[in-house]
Amino acid sequence: MSTVGKTITCKAAVAWEAGKPLSIEDIEVGAPKAHEVRIQIYYTGVCHTDAYTLSGKDPEGAFPVVLGHEGAGIVESVGEGVTNVKPGDHVVALYTPECRECKFCKSGKTNLCGKIRATQGKGVMPDGTSRFKCKGKDLLHFMGCSTFSQYTVVADISVVALTDKAPMDRTCLLGCGITTGYGAAVVTAGVEKGSNVAIFGAGCVGLSVIQGAVKNGAGRIIVVDVNSKKEEWAKKFGATEFINPTTIDKPIQEYLVDITDGGLDYTFDCTGNVGVMRAALEACHKGWGESIVIGVAAAGQEISTRPFQLVTGRVWKGCAFGGIKGRTQLPDLVDDYLTGKLKVDEFITHRKNLNGINEAFDVMHEGDCIRCVVDMVNL
Amino acid sequence: MSTVGKTITCKAAVAWEAGKPLSIEDIEVGAPKAHEVRIQIYYTGVCHTDAYTLSGKDPEGAFPVVLGHEGAGIVESVGEGVTNVKPGDHVVALYTPECRECKFCKSGKTNLCGKIRATQGKGVMPDGTSRFKCKGKDLLHFMGCSTFSQYTVVADISVVALTDKAPMDRTCLLGCGITTGYGAAVVTAGVEKGSNVAIFGAGCVGLSVIQGAVKNGAGRIIVVDVNSKKEEWAKKFGATEFINPTTIDKPIQEYLVDITDGGLDYTFDCTGNVGVMRAALEACHKGWGESIVIGVAAAGQEISTRPFQLVTGRVWKGCAFGGIKGRTQLPDLVDDYLTGKLKVDEFITHRKNLNGINEAFDVMHEGDCIRCVVDMVNL
Repeated sequence: MSTVGKTITCKAAVAWEAGKPLSIEDIEVGAPKAHEVRIQIYYTGVCHTDAYTLSGKDPEGAFPVVLGHEGAGIVESVGEGVTNVKPGDHVVALYTPECRECKFCKSGKTNLCGKIRATQGKGVMPDGTSRFKCKGKDLLHFMGCSTFSQYTVVADISVVALTDKAPMDRTCLLGCGITTGYGAAVVTAGVEKGSNVAIFGAGCVGLSVIQGAVKNGAGRIIVVDVNSKKEEWAKKFGATEFINPTTIDKPIQEYLVDITDGGLDYTFDCTGNVGVMRAALEACHKGWGESIVIGVAAAGQEISTRPFQLVTGRVWKGCAFGGIKGRTQLPDLVDDYLTGKLKVDEFITHRKNLNGINEAFDVMHEGDCIRCVVDMVNL
Repeated sequence: MSTVGKTITCKAAVAWEAGKPLSIEDIEVGAPKAHEVRIQIYYTGVCHTDAYTLSGKDPEGAFPVVLGHEGAGIVESVGEGVTNVKPGDHVVALYTPECRECKFCKSGKTNLCGKIRATQGKGVMPDGTSRFKCKGKDLLHFMGCSTFSQYTVVADISVVALTDKAPMDRTCLLGCGITTGYGAAVVTAGVEKGSNVAIFGAGCVGLSVIQGAVKNGAGRIIVVDVNSKKEEWAKKFGATEFINPTTIDKPIQEYLVDITDGGLDYTFDCTGNVGVMRAALEACHKGWGESIVIGVAAAGQEISTRPFQLVTGRVWKGCAFGGIKGRTQLPDLVDDYLTGKLKVDEFITHRKNLNGINEAFDVMHEGDCIRCVVDMVNL
């Protein structure tokens, strides 16, 4: 019996309030309206941003909400006017949409898109309403994705169709972490052949920055992490050196400047720690070193440095989703995966089912988890 | 009688200690050693950096010293091995040298030069000694220039020969302020045709940023200064709008974002105030706006912002001497001056002689002084 045009009742992990575990509920998912797409989510990753909002520390976090923003699935139905995907397409949800019409999309200078920013930030669809209901209450959407539900509805500009040759338990990870790191190195920094790179934090994002640096032919690829267990991971992805900053007797930026004859050409913060962001900038080579902030800092935290660092030629920048335009560029990343140029399988250290999604949050905070993929179909 | 190879006794303004006026003294200027050039200084500008060091607030300032770094003159003699200038050449001293041999010069990415950085920072010639003596004591050099003396000695990589068609009371100003602002817009930022620009601080540097923005075809050129008298100056140089931030009822960055549909493409801090530097960054357009720090902040001051500003695509950078390579690019700026493309005469609001150099410092702190040129020959 077709579900098209009807409300679907399915399981979802609902965040009723901050600081509490997610609750598996039957929720009602409304039919997609014009320029909306309803997706059956097969797999979702769990990312630190989900945990941050769930913790209540995100001042913009609102509840009750269906979290999750790293998901892959199959289009169940589409609303009026949708032309970029069709039912049956294998897709990934995009928390950074791409409308191709706004000032941002047309600028050629950024992957940010302004079209639905205001409503996405408020946790509603572009028409200002929610497609989720549970126990008679509306639930909020999250980052325009809400992949912790068996079915979700997203704007058509927030979804990209990918070849069905790529397994969805892998492509889901291209919805955030892997793409963010890879894009930061390849697109945002534009790491050059032979340039020296330092990466702070060897989680999913940091390991993927390594991949981008390797792809672009970087020389030294130095990974910095306070967890020495990450050395093996970093080396596996192509790092040439690993440093645990707690084992050296001077500030990490001084150490790095010393061992690199003046500093790095490119550095990347993948920690969200503002002290690390400063160290990453100050580890850059005078005259040209660029530091890219990728990590999301806690609310109210600020970065700082002496302006002399910039006057003497260092550049401080950042990116979201690695500077990658999801609809335009994600298919290429999938091709790279299928042809063996982009590691994805290696990131998956843990697997859970929807019923065990709270355990996915628990393992994420353990040092040996890179990514936990959650099966949304088999409970 | 030739002075070549001999010590020259001449007048100089000596800074014996921090916080005291300069003292006009007879000093002995030694003959240039290998790869050194002795210059008879005809004119020098007085810049805020001289005043900063004289004030004692610069933690790296050392005394006694011959200040001044914005000077033009004629080569009196050269040491062994000097090939880039010869006696009789009209020259400008360069506080940012250009050796064309070091890692920095060869990088193609910066105008900074590393060759004599260590000794220049210590106030001595590259061989570690001083060429200045007064009352039996060595005097320190300053920024590799020391233009507050009728004769000075500089490294050969710290001087550029210019056509003698350009009057030296004008070319001296290309030794710092004018070049710094112009280069920041044209070289460091690379302002694009039609882009919107905001400039904080309408002193010599800020006015010259306007010139660079005009040259590159900027759209809106908004000048921000707390001194409303600067409006006339800003407009004269090509600003399209002027804002006195003390007359508006919200933070200047919010105001600028509002009136520019999201922010500026390029902003420039020409104040050295770290609060202004933050405002300049936050006035940038999300996704691509770049803020260039030009002003030199007081010791210990730090810049700060929320990292979200960078993650959403703003870029924080800076430059010294506008990113201009003195030996390679200054002759082109002089051509631009001679053909009417670069304003220089307009910057000169005051003139003093060496004997009145302390008055030049006094007028600099008044609001209506852009540049005071000091005649070093006619006392």
